[in-house]
Amino acid sequence: MRESHLPNWQRIASMKRAAIHDSIPKQWLLDNGTLQRCKEQKKLTGSFIEGLLDPETVEITTLDSVDIVEKIRSGNFTSLQVMRAFCWRAAISHQLNGCLLEYFCDDAMIRAEQLDDYYAKHNKTVGPLHGLPLSLKDQFHVQGVDTSMGYVGWLNSYEGRKGTGKEKVVESELIRELRSLGGIPFCKTSPVQTLWFGETNNNIMGYSKNPVNQGLSSGGSSGGEGALQAMKGSPIGAGTDIGGSVSIPASFCGLYSIKPSHGRISYQEAANSSPGQMIINSVVGFMSSSPRSLQLMMASLMSTKPWMHDPEIVKMPWRDSEELRQRDQLCFGIFASDGIVSPHPPIARALQMTVEALEAEGHKVIIWNPPSHSEASKIHSAFTDADGGADVHQQLKLSGEPLIPELRPYFANGPVPPMPLLDFYDLCLKRKDYRRRYLEYWMSTLNQTGTGRPVDGVILPVAPTAAVIPAYASTTNVLDFTAVVIPVTTADSKIDVFNHSYRPLNELDRQNWQAYDPEKYDGAPCGIQVMGRRLEEEKMLSISQIIADALHNYKQQSSQM
Amino acid sequence: MRESHLPNWQRIASMKRAAIHDSIPKQWLLDNGTLQRCKEQKKLTGSFIEGLLDPETVEITTLDSVDIVEKIRSGNFTSLQVMRAFCWRAAISHQLNGCLLEYFCDDAMIRAEQLDDYYAKHNKTVGPLHGLPLSLKDQFHVQGVDTSMGYVGWLNSYEGRKGTGKEKVVESELIRELRSLGGIPFCKTSPVQTLWFGETNNNIMGYSKNPVNQGLSSGGSSGGEGALQAMKGSPIGAGTDIGGSVSIPASFCGLYSIKPSHGRISYQEAANSSPGQMIINSVVGFMSSSPRSLQLMMASLMSTKPWMHDPEIVKMPWRDSEELRQRDQLCFGIFASDGIVSPHPPIARALQMTVEALEAEGHKVIIWNPPSHSEASKIHSAFTDADGGADVHQQLKLSGEPLIPELRPYFANGPVPPMPLLDFYDLCLKRKDYRRRYLEYWMSTLNQTGTGRPVDGVILPVAPTAAVIPAYASTTNVLDFTAVVIPVTTADSKIDVFNHSYRPLNELDRQNWQAYDPEKYDGAPCGIQVMGRRLEEEKMLSISQIIADALHNYKQQSSQM
Repeated sequence: MRESHLPNWQRIASMKRAAIHDSIPKQWLLDNGTLQRCKEQKKLTGSFIEGLLDPETVEITTLDSVDIVEKIRSGNFTSLQVMRAFCWRAAISHQLNGCLLEYFCDDAMIRAEQLDDYYAKHNKTVGPLHGLPLSLKDQFHVQGVDTSMGYVGWLNSYEGRKGTGKEKVVESELIRELRSLGGIPFCKTSPVQTLWFGETNNNIMGYSKNPVNQGLSSGGSSGGEGALQAMKGSPIGAGTDIGGSVSIPASFCGLYSIKPSHGRISYQEAANSSPGQMIINSVVGFMSSSPRSLQLMMASLMSTKPWMHDPEIVKMPWRDSEELRQRDQLCFGIFASDGIVSPHPPIARALQMTVEALEAEGHKVIIWNPPSHSEASKIHSAFTDADGGADVHQQLKLSGEPLIPELRPYFANGPVPPMPLLDFYDLCLKRKDYRRRYLEYWMSTLNQTGTGRPVDGVILPVAPTAAVIPAYASTTNVLDFTAVVIPVTTADSKIDVFNHSYRPLNELDRQNWQAYDPEKYDGAPCGIQVMGRRLEEEKMLSISQIIADALHNYKQQSSQM
Repeated sequence: MRESHLPNWQRIASMKRAAIHDSIPKQWLLDNGTLQRCKEQKKLTGSFIEGLLDPETVEITTLDSVDIVEKIRSGNFTSLQVMRAFCWRAAISHQLNGCLLEYFCDDAMIRAEQLDDYYAKHNKTVGPLHGLPLSLKDQFHVQGVDTSMGYVGWLNSYEGRKGTGKEKVVESELIRELRSLGGIPFCKTSPVQTLWFGETNNNIMGYSKNPVNQGLSSGGSSGGEGALQAMKGSPIGAGTDIGGSVSIPASFCGLYSIKPSHGRISYQEAANSSPGQMIINSVVGFMSSSPRSLQLMMASLMSTKPWMHDPEIVKMPWRDSEELRQRDQLCFGIFASDGIVSPHPPIARALQMTVEALEAEGHKVIIWNPPSHSEASKIHSAFTDADGGADVHQQLKLSGEPLIPELRPYFANGPVPPMPLLDFYDLCLKRKDYRRRYLEYWMSTLNQTGTGRPVDGVILPVAPTAAVIPAYASTTNVLDFTAVVIPVTTADSKIDVFNHSYRPLNELDRQNWQAYDPEKYDGAPCGIQVMGRRLEEEKMLSISQIIADALHNYKQQSSQM
């Protein structure tokens, strides 16, 4: 079919793909042979992608964010060196995996040079993120480039509207803060069309495969971000999460992430789906390769006093005093199954490893038996379905693009009548009551912990599989709790064998169980999440470091045995 | 149930009135002559009511909350002495004014004796509110007594439902916290039927006159609380506020009050109107006779870590570090008229006095020119009207009681269809945008203040009159800002004369202006409010003390001139 015979939306999407490709400097374009080899690879991360780069680029891009800013601050690297390295690696990542929707390396390198000039002149950095390359899920507005959020109809517009004067001019409040700290946005990553799914696909860049295991999904909705970071094409980046959209790609791609409570990180002037639904709030979260990188990001953003610019933000500076220390005696709840869908063997093993690692360090772990997560899941769906699909269909209509196949079970029958307001009010009360009961349960552990506190965090799966089927993630959104994802291990077909004697809990669990194929999942990252209460970001990031350290020690011990 | 089997709401209301009366100890009942004299009085406060008490009772009940707890802690008074004094004065207040819906002095005095025993045995208090008598708007559940919220149909039920097992058993989370601090609830005060009005009337206790000037209203919806405290029948008490319901009665009754932002004081297990509307949240606020009493209450409640028990509460201890000091150079905005309804002469004078008092202390005052408060008022009405009156009519139907006359213009035509959900979502976005623009304007004052900060607070009327017609108050609710009411002066028919040359801004303003009668308002308390941003309770209470001190100095100076 010739280009001119394609529907208009396909032509626009195709032009956008070409434009992204054209924005990559020629010297970084891959030849067809390499692209062909890529298709035959199971795993694109590590040695495969690094074979396409030079040693300095590999050295820089395998540092975490804390080391990067430290090495720029101490003069070991210039901002431009760092930016060039990540621009190159991101360009390669995109060609291998299609994870980007915007790529603006020229602007980023100009800014890096400006920062180097500032550093040379003043002998200091402009802020704690000086020179740090930043990737952003394509919901954040950045001057000079599109924000499509995966919708063809949003290209060359302001959130689907033209002639607003805001197109490619307005920047999200978060971007203003990040720039003031010295951070440099350089690309935007691909989300799932509509944002309402735990895998990533859209009509512009297509399906986002997991670069750690191309037979699997990178997760969603912030799947492009997860894929890019798995390939180390960015040291840190922002996603958004209303039902696991940060946590799921982080766990599928072997990353750390934080989904904070509502009211810490600004969402102002960022695009969103159904933005008028403000009871279960989508929040901005971050993915990165270490807990301390996430801590750097969160603490830096708090230092800009975002509550002075975004009325949704709680006036709450970063509280070092809330951080727990290695020597503190901790107690965790373990929630190994929600009773709806049991985790696949590799995830069950990751949970077990985490428990054993914590117990080996002298921490206590108790069984978590909270109000039904299935109830939370139903409340969550009721909120996200409340508009009857009005928002999704309005955006699709702009270009005439079809729904991606993954979403047809949910939205194919056009918009349906929205929930009546009085039902919505009842639903709000149900959520409130659920939150009350959950907190009450949490507090009831005070007598079991032996620490003088209720449990410090709850360890639970992000999803029952090492990819696909989100289920555990949305409870943290209903509760507005803090959730940190921790990569624990990778699936191993020799260890994580199919358990033929397992008796499924129900039909859904049977389907999930039968979908487990040890060979297919082999090598897939297995993350878990640790959940804290509302506005406990400081505490939960310090705890995630303690868990990561415990896992490190545990693995060393195991390998010596 | 057939119409003929419905209980007679008038009979039930009458029985309730009798029950309240019967709960008053016989020795405190007033004779008919005194009750007759009361009707002929313009002003019930001060010498009139104190003539009905003994000197010790007058001495105790004219102390503020800080002095009361201090004198109990130091052994100057027992808890029982204090409780007896307030029980007596509240009993007299109720007989003169009808401000109570529940009165439980026996329970309160038993608790006071227990606290005295504890004090005698341990030589310390149980907490910072040890022995402090507390009044509560009749939305808070207290064991052993009704919570009617002014609805006849709620008597002998749990929020209109029977057989829940919760009737007269469940206590609101706030009550649990107050008791743990040593506070003693002893009565509940009358709100307006439905809570949706700035005057107080209901079919149980009737219209709540202003005890400072019986020709005027005590305000609403927490009008019984304002009236009781104006008569010094309680040293401090809790109301609730979604559109001025604490601020208005405080200003009409000559009291200090704080309406905090959502997320500081627990509303859990308290009754409310339209509780499913959770975008503009009703909040718990306090009225008292001094800013330091409000500070004692707020700081004490924060010390109980309410976020451990109510998931709506922000994890934010009381922050002394946010308090401003007398020596700090401050800058205020002055918002003398919202351009819709100009304040009556006595309120305009109160604003002018506040400005002059602050300037005399070296503080700066600049003109406040924010996004339209009329826009905020429209957003506010749209939220409060969104359910089409469904909640109100459901509660009225329980007993068959009629709407009070004041509400007929708003609810008389039965429930109307609620707002469609998508319109509600749009409304949520309008509110979000208004909040953003308001904060942006606030920050824009940074260059004008000379303090290195944007304005520290905004001084504005609570209502355009010294009674009735709320209008200015709801903006603080749309913004979820902190508002503190400060009594400034009283209307004076000789000074606050009718300005015949005033040209009304519009028809509403003309009506308001013509309603000003210097003789009618003579002696009415004139309060103003000072508004801070979200979650700035510590700062705004410290500022209110600074303003109160400045006004004190200013009045002394003026009287010397």
